[in-house]
Parts: sequence; structure tokens; C-alpha cells
Amino acid sequence: MQNFQVIDGHVTSAKGFEASGVYAGIKKANKDVALIYSTVPAVGAAVFTTNKVCAAPVTVSKAHVADGKVRAIVVNSGNANACTGQKGLEDATAMGELCGELLNIPSEEVIVSSTGVIGVQMPMDKILSGITMAKAALSADGGLDAAAAIMTTDTKEKRIAVKLTVDGKEVTIGGIAKGSGMIHPNMATMLAFVTTDVAIDPVYLKKLLSEITDKTFNMITVDGDTSTNDMCVVLANGAAQNATLMEGSADSEAFKAALFHVLEHLSKAIIRDGEGATKFIEVAVSGATGEKEARIAVKSILNSNLVKTAFFGEDGNWGRILCSLGYSGCEMNPDIVTVTLSSAVGAVQIVAGGQGTDYSEDDVAALLKETDIKVDVDLGIGDAKAVGWGCDLSYEYVKINGAYRT
Amino acid sequence: MQNFQVIDGHVTSAKGFEASGVYAGIKKANKDVALIYSTVPAVGAAVFTTNKVCAAPVTVSKAHVADGKVRAIVVNSGNANACTGQKGLEDATAMGELCGELLNIPSEEVIVSSTGVIGVQMPMDKILSGITMAKAALSADGGLDAAAAIMTTDTKEKRIAVKLTVDGKEVTIGGIAKGSGMIHPNMATMLAFVTTDVAIDPVYLKKLLSEITDKTFNMITVDGDTSTNDMCVVLANGAAQNATLMEGSADSEAFKAALFHVLEHLSKAIIRDGEGATKFIEVAVSGATGEKEARIAVKSILNSNLVKTAFFGEDGNWGRILCSLGYSGCEMNPDIVTVTLSSAVGAVQIVAGGQGTDYSEDDVAALLKETDIKVDVDLGIGDAKAVGWGCDLSYEYVKINGAYRT
Repeated sequence: MQNFQVIDGHVTSAKGFEASGVYAGIKKANKDVALIYSTVPAVGAAVFTTNKVCAAPVTVSKAHVADGKVRAIVVNSGNANACTGQKGLEDATAMGELCGELLNIPSEEVIVSSTGVIGVQMPMDKILSGITMAKAALSADGGLDAAAAIMTTDTKEKRIAVKLTVDGKEVTIGGIAKGSGMIHPNMATMLAFVTTDVAIDPVYLKKLLSEITDKTFNMITVDGDTSTNDMCVVLANGAAQNATLMEGSADSEAFKAALFHVLEHLSKAIIRDGEGATKFIEVAVSGATGEKEARIAVKSILNSNLVKTAFFGEDGNWGRILCSLGYSGCEMNPDIVTVTLSSAVGAVQIVAGGQGTDYSEDDVAALLKETDIKVDVDLGIGDAKAVGWGCDLSYEYVKINGAYRT
Repeated sequence: MQNFQVIDGHVTSAKGFEASGVYAGIKKANKDVALIYSTVPAVGAAVFTTNKVCAAPVTVSKAHVADGKVRAIVVNSGNANACTGQKGLEDATAMGELCGELLNIPSEEVIVSSTGVIGVQMPMDKILSGITMAKAALSADGGLDAAAAIMTTDTKEKRIAVKLTVDGKEVTIGGIAKGSGMIHPNMATMLAFVTTDVAIDPVYLKKLLSEITDKTFNMITVDGDTSTNDMCVVLANGAAQNATLMEGSADSEAFKAALFHVLEHLSKAIIRDGEGATKFIEVAVSGATGEKEARIAVKSILNSNLVKTAFFGEDGNWGRILCSLGYSGCEMNPDIVTVTLSSAVGAVQIVAGGQGTDYSEDDVAALLKETDIKVDVDLGIGDAKAVGWGCDLSYEYVKINGAYRT
């Protein structure tokens, strides 16, 4: 039973949040500066890319979120401010400072985020005037504009909101995300910003965020490339006036489930918008000797270019699935693996005991024509399982990434 | 100074070897059964795929090579005999047995090798009649036919031979290889067969082979997928009549250098024929804290779909190179990395101190129009280095792999 309700919303659905998205000329066209702001003091938690080459805004934001007090998020698209050295750090810091000044809050309460091309210094005149415009445009209806302003190669906005009751009070959680390529476990090139009016202990919020991103954003992959700029930030401002949620509070499991739904939805939305993707692929591995093993197996299948191109070609090439399991490093006995493919039109077990079953090629061809495909693998040697999401590899992916800068 | 001379040759260039390649109807067209045979007793060494899902012929051949006595290699293309269970093992064993019978040698001296589609039982009537035909066709000029018969998606034959002097005697080493996709370090989907008339201690031969494949075949990648069927086999029959080469023998370094050249040439030939490849990319990483670290860095760059598509688009997108270094897991300090791109028309240092240099985009564009591109990365924190080879990711790769089985 789920204790939350999905509503039509985003980052300004929760009480006490404003947002905006404006065009500052950083990209050739379309909105490129977003601002998200809590009108009352708020706590925040964030997870960041594990890439050793991390962007300047990641460095700055890690410091700013450390004390759990966050009230605003400023984001630009069109330039990642990555591999930009000392100047990049100064620029990211300046973005936070201007926001702090305009909003009359400490600059340490501003999360700074950037996405776009790597290795080009930021056009700071445009960025700073964009932030000024974004401040002026802040509104309680601005969530959709913010969702648009954080996009790069994305073809659609990614957003969701849910409502639930915590301590007898109505609590809303709303989120937006961007991401389409350079998507890989350990924080893909994705940005996700979530706001909620729940009152929550920041330490507990951070714990929840880590736990949930591990099973959502860290289990999606478009191309196996972990970006320099990833972050997922949650702001909680307490405007719902519930008694502060702590680990073990009465409604903490309900809140966790709702937050999980929001992050899972945004993760999947990124995959559905994967660069050039024509298929949405869910891989579930069960029967593993440990959760880590199961996760390795899931990611190996999702990251195999040969598996991905097979799905693009609507080819039930289970040999490639077994091959990718074989080199994944996960513990396995090839002779007892089973694989089942399914989609809206049916399910076919194509591998049993490590070998092809006597399945009908027509049945498999029919089920692979669907957009949403599920791969169930049972390793048959343990009780652990994991699920992840990815997409196929198409001509369009190559085209997008062969010409991204031009 | 190199002590060997490259000659126009292959697996029947060395004295005492015969080979053949015939069409047995396993593939829709083209030769599909190859046989390589030493007319005198020979020793052999081999390395195999590390994929836990390994094909039946790999299991059989591992056992056959264990005692270092090998005299023949039988290969079919068109069917990998992988994920074929007990029946697959029986079929691989039967291939060795028929060869042994026809050649009047113990079946344990026959290496069995298969390449092609995974998960389909072998058409044993065709295979066995193919082996009979191949035996009848054996000839001292048959090396080219064998090279053709081991191909699958390959567009050209891969072969080389070298001559050198060992112990005052002329020694020849000749090799053939196949491989075009599912190519990844740890024995790519590749088969390589090398024959030499040197007299050599089999234990020393095995040591040499491991050392050399680690720096050649294990440093190439087309798509990051490690196949179920890879093997590299060297047969040495002593027909050159040199005093048996041991570790530390006078000419052992010269022989090692010559064998290295043969395996390196075949490795690179596989990459040049990479599925859909339009660019040949050499990545050299220096200044690493250890050779393992350097190898990790090389492979991470070569396996990044974003780096590969950038090269396909002739885009000097160094940010993606740094990004792939950052998530590789190798030890690094992003702020001191340098990157230089070069090709036949020049060299441009595009990254210094972790940031883009003030390079000319026109110079880089001109350099990237060439087919052979070199990427030099200096991590600047140690003395270790490594080199590897890969290719770009093109529309054609997607096309080939989206429709391989159809």
C-alpha cells in the first residue's frame, strides 16, 4: 500500500518555495539559468559525482551543504564549469555570492550547479545578469521554468510531485531533473533538485538521500560515462509544520517511500530521455550471492554496447546478455542462469540452465517491438537482488555525441 | 635496433607447417573451417578468455594445451559453440577427435576453436565433413585460406610474418588473427594463431606469450565486451633446428621482440578492422603511479562511448578524455594532467594543468581528419606508463550489431 498520491507538480509544489528559469544567452537558445528558493529557512542534503575530475560548482556546493543549511539552488545550463581551474572555482563562488546578496541570505546557503560543455570558462557577465533576472522572476509558479532552464540535450522536462500526510499534516515533495547522456551509476550526468515542505532532521534527510539515490540514480545508465557535474539536492523547509521528522518517527517510512518514488520517477525519466534511446530497459537480477554482486550484474548488462545495440535492433540476443554477465565479475555459475524477457505483450523465458530454451522467435520479436522491455535474470545461487534501468544504443546516440560541440 | 625482418607471410611461412581453409556450409557463404598443422611434433602455449561464460572449445583446448604439446589447431567460424551445455562440450571434443584421427596424432594435441553466434548448437554434420575436407586440403601454401576461414564480421584478413636468426639458424614466426567486435582487454573476441619453427622450451614459450599478450591483445578494445571464445595460440615445431631456446638463451630477447611484433601487429590489425571503425586510436598514458594504474587509465579512455563518438565526429573534446580519466579509478591529480593529440599532420597539446590550452581549433580539426590518431596523457605523478589501442564508435557499429543475427 502506498501512502502518497502523485500530483501534477514540481519544485514549487511544496509550500514556501519559489523558482524561476530565464534566458541569459549562455546557450544558443532556450532558458539557461534557474533559481530555486525557499522563502523560509530550510535544511538540505545532497549527493555528488564520484568523478575525480569534478566541476567547480560541485566543489563549492559540497562545502555549502556540509552544515545541512541550504535555502537556494542556482543552476546554469550551457557550460559545466568543469576543468576550469582556479578561475572556475572563483566563478562558482561568485554565483553563490550574488545569489546570497540578492536573496539576503548567507552565500553558504546557496547550492551552485552547472551543466553543459566541459573545459570552457564561464561567460560570467551573462551568468551574473542571468542570476539577477532569475531573482526578479522568482514565483510560486516558477517550477516549470526552472525545469526547462536546467536542460541541455534533454528533449523533455522531467518532473514529479507527490503528497502525503506526516504527523497529521499535508506534506508535498516535488522534483525536477535533467540528464540525457553521460549517464552512469555513481551519479550520472544528471542534476536533480527536490523540494519538500516537510520538517525533517537534516542528518536523517542526508541518510535517506544516500540510501535512496543508491537504488535510483545510481542504478541508471545511458553510456557508462560518469559525469563531472552530477548532483542531487533535496531542500526541506518545514512549511508543512509537522513535528520534525526523525529516523524512527511514526511517518518516516511513509515519507521515505514517497521520496523514493520521486527520485525513482526522475531517474527513469532521465533514461526515457536517454540520448538517441528508442527503448527503455529494466534489468532485474535475482538469486545473487549479495546485493553488490547483483548490482554489478545489472550494470554490466545495461552497459554492454552489444546488448544495447541488440535491443535497438529488436534482437533477442541472449548470448550477449550471458556474455556480459560472464565478464562482469559477479559470482555466477553459467550453467544454471535463467533469463526472461518481457514487455506489455508478454513474457518469454529465453534461457534456462545457461542455454537457450525452445522459445518462439516470433513471440520474442513481438515483445521486443515494445518500447519498455524488462530483462529478468536469475543467477540461482543466492537470495540477493537488484534492479536498474538503461536504454538501447542507436544511430542517434552516435550522431548526438559525434556533433555535440558543433 | 630490431633483429627481425617483416616478410610477406602467415601461418605456413615457418618451416614444417601446413594449413587450409574450406567452406563447409556453416556460414551463409565464405570459408568457415580452418586447419593448421605441424608436420613434425611441436610445443604450444595459449591464453584464453577470462569470461566466466566461456565457450566449449575454450574448455576443451585449455585441457589439451596443459601439457605444452600441441600439433594442430582446428577452427570453425559461424558458430561459437558457447552456451551450448554438455552437447557443446561433446561437439568440441568430437572436433578434436576427428582431427587427431585424420592426422594420426593424439586428439589431446589438437586445439579446438570456434567463433560466431552464441547459443546455437553446432551443425556437427557440416563441421565434421568440413574438417575432413580441411585435412584433404592441407598445404604448405594454405595459410591465407586459413586466415580467410576464421573470419566472421571481419572485413579483411589479418596476418604477418617475421624472420630472425636464433642460434645461427633462420627462424620464422607467422600469425593470423580474426576479430572485429566484442573486443576488450582480457582476451578480446579474437582468435590469433601463430606458428614458428623455432625450437623452444614450452614453459618459456608460455611465459613469453603471457607477458606479450598482456601488452598487446589485452590492450585493445572495440566495445568493452569480453568474448566467450577468445584465444591466442602459438605453435613452435623446432624445424629451424636451433638449440632449444630457454629463458636467458643468447637470442631469447631477439625472439621475444620478434614475437612481440607479430602479436602487436595482429592486435592493431583487429582494431583497424573494428566494427564500423573509421579511426584507429592509440592512447599512451605516462606519469602514472604504477603500470596497473596506467593501464586502467588507457582502457577507460578507449572504452568511453563519449570519447569514441567525439573522435568519430572529429571533435577534439578533451573534456570527455579528462572525464573518463576521472571515473576510471586510476590515481590522478586532475590539476596537473596534460593531454596531447597527434596524427601524421602534427601534434597539439590541448590540455595543460588540467585545463584547455590556448590551442588552435583549426589545427586540431586538421589533425583529427586523419585516420590514425594518438592521444598522449601525462598524469605527472609517477613513472609508470602503458599504451593501448581502440577505435571510434560510428553509425556503422550500431548497424552491424543491431542486425548481426538477421
